[in-house]
Amino acid sequence: MKKALFITFEGVDGTGKSTQARLLKERLMQAKVPVVLTREPGGTRLAEKIRALLLNEEGLNFSTVAEILLYAAARAQHVDEVIRPALEDQKVVICERFTDSTLAYQGYASGNDLEQIRQIDQFASGGLVPDLTFLLDLTPQTGWARIQERMAQGQQDRIEARGSAFQAKVREGYLRIAAAEPERICVINSNGLRIDEVHRLIWETFYDKYHSLLGNCR
Amino acid sequence: MKKALFITFEGVDGTGKSTQARLLKERLMQAKVPVVLTREPGGTRLAEKIRALLLNEEGLNFSTVAEILLYAAARAQHVDEVIRPALEDQKVVICERFTDSTLAYQGYASGNDLEQIRQIDQFASGGLVPDLTFLLDLTPQTGWARIQERMAQGQQDRIEARGSAFQAKVREGYLRIAAAEPERICVINSNGLRIDEVHRLIWETFYDKYHSLLGNCR
Repeated sequence: MKKALFITFEGVDGTGKSTQARLLKERLMQAKVPVVLTREPGGTRLAEKIRALLLNEEGLNFSTVAEILLYAAARAQHVDEVIRPALEDQKVVICERFTDSTLAYQGYASGNDLEQIRQIDQFASGGLVPDLTFLLDLTPQTGWARIQERMAQGQQDRIEARGSAFQAKVREGYLRIAAAEPERICVINSNGLRIDEVHRLIWETFYDKYHSLLGNCR
Repeated sequence: MKKALFITFEGVDGTGKSTQARLLKERLMQAKVPVVLTREPGGTRLAEKIRALLLNEEGLNFSTVAEILLYAAARAQHVDEVIRPALEDQKVVICERFTDSTLAYQGYASGNDLEQIRQIDQFASGGLVPDLTFLLDLTPQTGWARIQERMAQGQQDRIEARGSAFQAKVREGYLRIAAAEPERICVINSNGLRIDEVHRLIWETFYDKYHSLLGNCR
């Protein structure tokens, strides 16, 4: 049977993707499932350099098109160097952000042509699609409050700086993507839930779909 | 009448593009024509950073697709920030390398799908096509000898390091592109010519096409 799985975490900033991706990874490691945790933009030396340009470098101008192409370049390298080799090695790859982020941020929220973005992404990813995607969803108020906490600590990046109205558009984009692909995308409504409660919802979904991977460990 | 012109210099490494682009610029400045000289990959802060990643950064891996997308991102920013504004300002823009380089290097010489490269480039450039392109052509032996001089001085970059067989394929690609677009692309055979002789050929071609721009200055 197929053991390789490609699982992505999506959601606006502040929804807990990093934390939940890490918790799922740890749970899988306990179950002796070979697992790789990675993130976009990033995951390779080249892509991390591109990430730094996109998010943190001071005083750079980006045209919309340049931004889309840079994210795509980072994805191409990430798929080629990390994700595909791990999948070929029969590992579970957990990735924070992938194509859905591009569609939600550069497409729905920024008003660029979705079809053109899909074409560029198809070229970049070589057509790789996640087996399962967790979309962590919070009301805009809650997500924005978390971003503001980070901002207060001086950790805000270029995307977060676009403000709450932009984040709300990203969220709407995500929900539309999820509505179109309910088989692949599992929306986790995490309003008012603790971290461990969100993790339980994620784990139950994973277990229902893929428990045959896990042997006897629940 | 239209005063804005977009002129590109193309050719394999070591054919004298930088020198000839500069000489044309100086000649136009003497004739009081407003002119901007720029180059690819580069020409903006973002694009120069991408250029440094592509050509000179040690120890980075690039998938073919990532490389194509990075060049495209640099072009998108360059067109948006430098080339289009200068053309809208009725200037002559002289650019060292543009779409033909992408087709020759990433397409013909590297064996990637030309149609896909054209699509990405169309997205990146917004469909901008040079009014006139000078393709500086040398026999592979002569061009390669010049690259080797640079290598001996420790100035070799990642593309030049691909060797003489690769450069020969790039040249063949260029000649095919030129054969398909004789109206736009002027092939300058500079074997055995001095720098000033090559410049005279370029200037004569420019003058024949655009002397109405120049008033009485020849």
